[in-house]
Parts: sequence; structure tokens; C-alpha cells
Amino acid sequence: MRTTTLADLGEDRLVAQLSSLLASGPSVRTGIGDDCAVLGPRNAPLWQLLKTDAVVEGVHFTPDTAPRRIGWKALCRPISDIAAMGGSPEHALVTIAARRDLPAAWLRALYRGIEAAARRFGVHVVGGETARSPGPLFLSIALTGSVPRPHCVLRSGGRPGDALYVTGRLGGSLAGHHLDFIPRLEEARWLVSNFKPRAMMDLSDGIGSDLPRLAAASHCGFHLDEEKIPRNPGCSLAQALGDGEDFELLFALPPRRCAALEAAWKTTFPRLPLSRIGALTPPTRATKRTPHNAPAAHGFDHFA
Amino acid sequence: MRTTTLADLGEDRLVAQLSSLLASGPSVRTGIGDDCAVLGPRNAPLWQLLKTDAVVEGVHFTPDTAPRRIGWKALCRPISDIAAMGGSPEHALVTIAARRDLPAAWLRALYRGIEAAARRFGVHVVGGETARSPGPLFLSIALTGSVPRPHCVLRSGGRPGDALYVTGRLGGSLAGHHLDFIPRLEEARWLVSNFKPRAMMDLSDGIGSDLPRLAAASHCGFHLDEEKIPRNPGCSLAQALGDGEDFELLFALPPRRCAALEAAWKTTFPRLPLSRIGALTPPTRATKRTPHNAPAAHGFDHFA
Repeated sequence: MRTTTLADLGEDRLVAQLSSLLASGPSVRTGIGDDCAVLGPRNAPLWQLLKTDAVVEGVHFTPDTAPRRIGWKALCRPISDIAAMGGSPEHALVTIAARRDLPAAWLRALYRGIEAAARRFGVHVVGGETARSPGPLFLSIALTGSVPRPHCVLRSGGRPGDALYVTGRLGGSLAGHHLDFIPRLEEARWLVSNFKPRAMMDLSDGIGSDLPRLAAASHCGFHLDEEKIPRNPGCSLAQALGDGEDFELLFALPPRRCAALEAAWKTTFPRLPLSRIGALTPPTRATKRTPHNAPAAHGFDHFA
Repeated sequence: MRTTTLADLGEDRLVAQLSSLLASGPSVRTGIGDDCAVLGPRNAPLWQLLKTDAVVEGVHFTPDTAPRRIGWKALCRPISDIAAMGGSPEHALVTIAARRDLPAAWLRALYRGIEAAARRFGVHVVGGETARSPGPLFLSIALTGSVPRPHCVLRSGGRPGDALYVTGRLGGSLAGHHLDFIPRLEEARWLVSNFKPRAMMDLSDGIGSDLPRLAAASHCGFHLDEEKIPRNPGCSLAQALGDGEDFELLFALPPRRCAALEAAWKTTFPRLPLSRIGALTPPTRATKRTPHNAPAAHGFDHFA
């Protein structure tokens, strides 16, 4: 019998398998399976958020990428996850594994990119580790944050009938956008304060795989109006569904709130499109059976 | 002119350079340069601890190492850092970058090693990320913890005249001990509750480079009585100084407390040696001049 590899299993099934090996705890509000871990006593006024995210040379950036842009991206990725919970980022630790012959100036430039993102989004970099890598550069950032309990939005709170929205435009991240994106921190904080979504996540693997995850976590099916998906200039529908690394917000809102949201959004963020792209539906048999295991149709699977 | 590489610079100077690029913040008690970041308002009863640590295939373990042992080691390393501050570990996030053809069973075994360490030392694994690696396996763990403010021990509190102690025996980690070590969590918590050290750290790179770091952080010199260094069976002095990955505690204590500590230690931890190996001294010119930059004589430098 052939050995099952990570590529055979795929990312979602792998995560589901590994999750089942791990114990939970009394101060864990949400662990594996959402954008961040949510920690704290059930009734605490403020919950802690915790996220790690890695970028790897040859996978998330090419060797000729400007180090400052790599640093910016590496910190903005987990900031986007904290934003998707309705929270604010706080402290970061930077772990780097690098070849011994890497120019020190290259690494300083990478740190300047991290620091630029840290300053812009109110993060303090408080430590980290440098280790040796035998080959590719590996950069992992751990980020803490906090969210007032009433503002915390999970992936799992959506209900059938909720309208689905995305911010910005999707697709074409490989043209460069994936290195310079702005996490939707300000927009997410405004949303949870004014029109709290029932479920929210950031789009990192493409709406084609991320939307099924949000729907599955909410024990719903979904309807997606493909014509309504906002595309970046020159992008096909397939690209908008599957390129990934959009780092836009996807969220679910009760229909009675939609008109008010759309009006307020236009005056608050006049330059950022907000698109109603579909709705959550009653669960289909597939989503009922495998809630953590939705098919990654169209989207980016790290091991596929 | 030849480009300066990480190997030219060495780990301590690299960390000093990168630190200077980063801003600090009002809730940062200690950032880069100690075993963990210490976070929280100055007068909070409990401070938060934050640490990341990475192990890389071909650097920290060989490809034929049993995955369960790799997982155990990967979590025990940052637990050892939390212990060295006098704290207790709480929540961990696991970031893995792996080749697509890695057997899924191998990764499950690695997670079982992580979970075994988590259960033993009271840690909850609350999430993480799996990414693709083009080559070697990378495993980075972010660990939170907490410490009652009066128990928190930094590297920087030592004073001239303080006695220096190490727990256990040093050297020979490559014979296998580095994969199965027990972080001195219980011993460190007992110490900070009963004989609070003025300065403490865990020995990860070898006492030959770690002791100069503790002394420099405390703005002291040091005297090391090499004959008193407790060695593992079959180890030379050079191995005890420089093999690294001992994960024992090194700490500084006022001399008037030494007799009481040694008596209490023997009854509390009868099977773990405690050795008085020297003392902190008034600063030498070298340590005054380069407090974050002590020479890594004899010890392990990740980029050397």
C-alpha cells in the first residue's frame, strides 16, 4: 500500500486530523479551525487573540523579492487574521531561519519592512529568534492581539439566509499585490463596532476554498453569485476564486442589516468596494457530514 | 568590499543590530535580549510571557530522527525559556513547513510528541499553521505563559558577588539527551518561590556562551571555576562548555542565601545535582563597553 502523503491528504483534512490529537482547555474559547485562537475566561471583558503565520522562500516569495516587501507581508498576514476576528494586534515575535551566507544587510532590510508594518498597525515587535537554515529562508511571526468580547467574530456564527459580503477586489495577487497589501484592520474594527457580522474571516487561500470553510464552520451551505464577485482588472473568474492571498474580508450579515450597512460603508470607506456576493443556505448533506472538512474547490491548497 | 554575512556577524551582534531597528512600547517590560518577552503594565499582579522557538531539519535534528522525539523537543525548548523566567507555560501555536511528499503518519507522530510534552507540562496547543516547504522541515512553536510579578527573574538582575549555580550536568547533548530533555519547570518555580535568584536563564547554547550573556545583561564580569562544572559521563570540559542544548538552569544568588538553598535543594530535588560554579564580578572593560555583545567564547553560535 502506498504511504499517504500531505499532498494526498490536503490541507483541510490534515488540519482536522492533527486537531483531533490535541487537548483543549478551560480558557480556550476557540482553538484550531478559526483565523486565530481566542483565549480567556468565558465572561472576561477582553479576550486574547493568538496567531502564527509563516512565509517560506520559494513558496510565498521568490529569492529575488525585495526583503523589505517580504517583511511587510510576513507581519501583515497575521494582522489580517487578527482583524478578521474584530480584534487589534499587539505584540509580535519574529522567528527567522536563514543561510549563513545571507548578507546581514538583506536581513536588516527585511526587519525594516516588518517594522514599517508594525508602526502602521500599532504592533510592538518584542523579540524572536534567529536560527540557521540549510536552504530556503523561513520566516514565522507570532502575533498577539485582543478583542472586546462583544466584538469578537468567529467563522462559526453564520446562519442560513445571512448575506455574504467581500471587501475590495479579488484575484491577481501574484502580480505583486500579495507583497504590498493593506490588512483590513480599520474596516473590520468599524464593522464589529457598527454592523457586527455573524461570521467573518480573511481571504488567504481564495474565496473558492475559504467560503466553503466559513460555511462549514457555520454548519451552513452557501449560494455564490459568481457574477457579483469583484475582480481585480484583468482577472478571470477562476483567478478571483482561486489565486488566493487577497487578504480581503469575507463576512455574513443578517439581511435586515444590509441596506444600512451598504449606505454607511459608502460614506465611511468611499474608495473600497463592498460587494454582496451571495448568501448562506441551510446545510447540505456534505457540509453536515464533514464540518471541518469542506472541499477546497477552486482554491489554493498548500499541499495540493 | 566583501559583503558582511550572518556568519561574519555572529548571532549576538546580529540580534543587537536587529533589536536597534525595533520600537519598544509602554506594555513591554522586557523585549529582545532575555529568554522571553515580558508584557504587561508595570504594576500588574501577573505578567505575560511570550516566546517563539524553531527547530530545523539538518540543524536541530537529522532526517532519521523519530518524529515523536522532534515534537517533544520542539515544545520543551520554549517551555525551558518560560521556566527560566520563573513562569508557567500556557498556550502554544505550532507552525510547520513540510515537503508535500512527507508521510501524513510522520506528521501525526510529531504531533503526538508535541501533545505528550503539552500534557506533561500543562500546555494547551490552540492552533497553528501548516505550510509547504521546498526542502527541509521547519517547525516553529510560539508559547505564551504567565508569571506573578514578584516571581519574574530576568537575566539582568545579577550583582557583583552573587554566586552562580547550574542544575544538572552539562555536555554531551548530541548523544541524544537534546531530544529527550526535561525542562526544569518544577525546579524553577520552586526556586522563584523560595530562593528567588537575582538573574536566571536556561542553557541552550552552552555555558561557554550563555554565561557571558547573563553576566553582560547584568553589567557584570564573571569568575567561572571550571573544575566545578558538572559534566555528563564521558564529557570533556570543552564539551560541557560548548556542546549546548543542556537546557539546565543557570542562576545568580546572593552569597548569604547559598547555604540555605543548598540544604533545601538536597531534600527537595535529591536526584538533581546543583553546582556552585563561580560568581559574578565587577564589570570588566569589555562587558561595560558591549553589554549586549559579549564574546561567545567556547559556545555555540548559530551562524558561526
